[in-house]
Amino acid sequence: MPEISGRGLSVVIVGASGDLARNKIIPALFSLFCQGYLPEPFCIIGLARTAWTDPDFRNQIEPHLTCRYVPDRQCAEKVRDFLGRCYYVSGQYSSVDSYLTLFQRMQQVEQGGPFDRMFYMSVPPFLFLEVARTMGNAGLLACGDQTPWSRVVIEKPFGRDRASSDQLVAGISQIFSEEQTYRIDHYLGKEVIQNLLVLRFANLVFEPIWSSSFIERVRISWKEDIGVGERGGYFNEYGIIRDVIQNHLTQILALVAMEPPASFRSHDVSAAKTDLLKAVRPADLDNWAIGQYDGYLDEPGIPTGSLTPTFAAGVLQIDNARWKGVPFFVDAGKGLDERVTEIRIRFRPTECCRAVEEAAGPLPPNELVIRVQPDELIRLGIVNKVPGLEMKVAQTWLNLAYKSAFQTLIPEAYECLLLDIMQGDRSLFITRGELAASWDIFTPLLHDLEERNVAPAVYAFGTRGAGQTHASTEEQ
Amino acid sequence: MPEISGRGLSVVIVGASGDLARNKIIPALFSLFCQGYLPEPFCIIGLARTAWTDPDFRNQIEPHLTCRYVPDRQCAEKVRDFLGRCYYVSGQYSSVDSYLTLFQRMQQVEQGGPFDRMFYMSVPPFLFLEVARTMGNAGLLACGDQTPWSRVVIEKPFGRDRASSDQLVAGISQIFSEEQTYRIDHYLGKEVIQNLLVLRFANLVFEPIWSSSFIERVRISWKEDIGVGERGGYFNEYGIIRDVIQNHLTQILALVAMEPPASFRSHDVSAAKTDLLKAVRPADLDNWAIGQYDGYLDEPGIPTGSLTPTFAAGVLQIDNARWKGVPFFVDAGKGLDERVTEIRIRFRPTECCRAVEEAAGPLPPNELVIRVQPDELIRLGIVNKVPGLEMKVAQTWLNLAYKSAFQTLIPEAYECLLLDIMQGDRSLFITRGELAASWDIFTPLLHDLEERNVAPAVYAFGTRGAGQTHASTEEQ
Repeated sequence: MPEISGRGLSVVIVGASGDLARNKIIPALFSLFCQGYLPEPFCIIGLARTAWTDPDFRNQIEPHLTCRYVPDRQCAEKVRDFLGRCYYVSGQYSSVDSYLTLFQRMQQVEQGGPFDRMFYMSVPPFLFLEVARTMGNAGLLACGDQTPWSRVVIEKPFGRDRASSDQLVAGISQIFSEEQTYRIDHYLGKEVIQNLLVLRFANLVFEPIWSSSFIERVRISWKEDIGVGERGGYFNEYGIIRDVIQNHLTQILALVAMEPPASFRSHDVSAAKTDLLKAVRPADLDNWAIGQYDGYLDEPGIPTGSLTPTFAAGVLQIDNARWKGVPFFVDAGKGLDERVTEIRIRFRPTECCRAVEEAAGPLPPNELVIRVQPDELIRLGIVNKVPGLEMKVAQTWLNLAYKSAFQTLIPEAYECLLLDIMQGDRSLFITRGELAASWDIFTPLLHDLEERNVAPAVYAFGTRGAGQTHASTEEQ
Repeated sequence: MPEISGRGLSVVIVGASGDLARNKIIPALFSLFCQGYLPEPFCIIGLARTAWTDPDFRNQIEPHLTCRYVPDRQCAEKVRDFLGRCYYVSGQYSSVDSYLTLFQRMQQVEQGGPFDRMFYMSVPPFLFLEVARTMGNAGLLACGDQTPWSRVVIEKPFGRDRASSDQLVAGISQIFSEEQTYRIDHYLGKEVIQNLLVLRFANLVFEPIWSSSFIERVRISWKEDIGVGERGGYFNEYGIIRDVIQNHLTQILALVAMEPPASFRSHDVSAAKTDLLKAVRPADLDNWAIGQYDGYLDEPGIPTGSLTPTFAAGVLQIDNARWKGVPFFVDAGKGLDERVTEIRIRFRPTECCRAVEEAAGPLPPNELVIRVQPDELIRLGIVNKVPGLEMKVAQTWLNLAYKSAFQTLIPEAYECLLLDIMQGDRSLFITRGELAASWDIFTPLLHDLEERNVAPAVYAFGTRGAGQTHASTEEQ
């Protein structure tokens, strides 16, 4: 069991009537509660504009709670117990009075407090700064990251480019110190992503061959087989590069490519990631294909003639000794042929096997595949002799499927991230340095697209995307 | 399909009434026939002392033929067709007249011949030389390895030590040239062993880490859970070191440890294996444990007070740049706790993970396991984060099980070896150079054991053997 502060905890969710709160944050808190990871006492206080009462809020939450971690017979009681700690305040995000009401409510609940306080900003990003300032003005944040602590959680998008990101960071930092600020990239909470550090550095067999001498190319790919759905209004403002590539895929890139950190502590890991990101050459529009699925313009909330890309594929180059000349292909898209997020590391061909090739044809290269979702797996493609009387070789897979390898439940990313926030473990959160460096990679590309009004190529829904690059067409 | 000479083929099996002929050689020839790998016309002529007729011989063979490669409905016809090509000559192994009778029979069958001729010595080793000489005197071997060819097949044991092996090689070479002589080590025909070259050299991911810099130890292990059974008389003459270690396990060692061959052609592979074997330091009795299972002395055919080892375990050192200081643990035994032949390559611990170890305890090392039998598999043990909210790591396996990975039948070793002999492919056979070098490793140990009358430690049947070495106790 992890360290728990011994103090009570209040989780304040600003924007508690929204999808993220109901589908992810509150169910993850419930799972932590079921596993005994929440301190006692705790409370969850939602704030939103919707005119709900406490019972309304609880009725809204209940259908989303699942008892993965407790036996069925205990489920109803656990749910009842949990819901009894959930409170709701109806108010305006920019009204000091609303936060004073919230504060009063919190004090009523925090008998014997004050508790540690987690402020989760589950609101659109343009509200981050205003909410933070208003909370500050209402005096909710007196404690800092001391005992008891106050911590703020924000989610992407963190700005639209380097300048607006810097502005957001600077604004928030006037209210919350960097140590109090937890910038979530929920991909970092996914099991396979958390395993990347262990896989790379706790195994002797990978690090010696983890460089341009042995690796020919890397592909990091994010594909969804659905469209923007109800999120069109939000998505259209940002597009696939800001929504997926600049954050999720760039973080994965950093973990795959960074130098060994001095230790696995958050500060050292972040330093290694930041160094790597600074070595990535800014993305160049000439090396990127941009697409929009056919039908996107008819989705609810999409303005006529929108040029927002729902697909992007391109190549990144890393200017350091380890990766000189190795292309990192990156692609992400909605409305594609499948749902999968994976990393494919393709090794160079061997040079020693002329005689095998004479007998059996060209040898397939080795490939390490790390699948993040939907079905977590790691597999290494190696060349073997196919059993039989003739010399034939084929790529076959050394497989590790999480579901069969591990007899344990795979936690949701949010469970892990929320627990880390409570424990003050910042390893899986984005520092301002990483954020700035990742924007530096994509800001020129994003500006070019917008300044030149680049029209995305239209691709049919359910296909493999637009303007197929080398990466996206070949590696299946 | 492979090249077939276009000429007919006669397979002469000297010792055709024995177990090897009925259980292995003839069934393998039948499987090759079913797959279309035997030339037409062909015939099989058995010679042995038992007073059988052709029909007797065919009746003896028939129960051992299985139709793995043809549909059930064609089976009876295939068997009938095959048996019709099987002939038998009753005679004495050292009588020229017997071979003249055989020769006449062969000429009757080889209408339009002469055919290519394969002489399989399925007789006890003390007869090899006599049979070869008598065949030579009878004039059966006029053709050499020309067209049509004559080839001789012999099986271990090839002598009892370096001197007697040299004597046998020299004697046989007066009748058959080295090019005509096929020394079978049937382990080399096993699929997983044949895959070793491909695995090592057709994959980029292994060769860079295949040295003392990254490999801590290697274990090559052969275990049987049965006793000597009816083979006591033979076995007691040789013991486990000559029966298994000096040949099968030493060949495996050579394939695991040799430098990359100039090509995969038999001459180059043999040169690489011979070089490696010459670099192995002679086995030293001080580093070996010798055992005999309790009850061995009561087996049929075992003389009172026999000191023959049924178990041996020790360590070999290779004096070259690649393997300096890496122990190669070798063990073999009968009457043990399980039946398995496998290679375990254990990598060194990583040095980079102090922080992981602080959180999760010592890291297990990487390990590559190559299982030859009974269930062929390759698996790589790697360290992963165990899914869950806490940082735990565990060794998990990237698995490749032949039965699930390959949708094809795994051929019997003898099918492969017999086909290679027909095709003149010598890659999987032991050259005189390899043979001499492998005897050089074990001759001093064997002489020490015998000259000093070393008594083997007695171990209980069905256990893990005697005088457990570091290798045999630790690596499970």
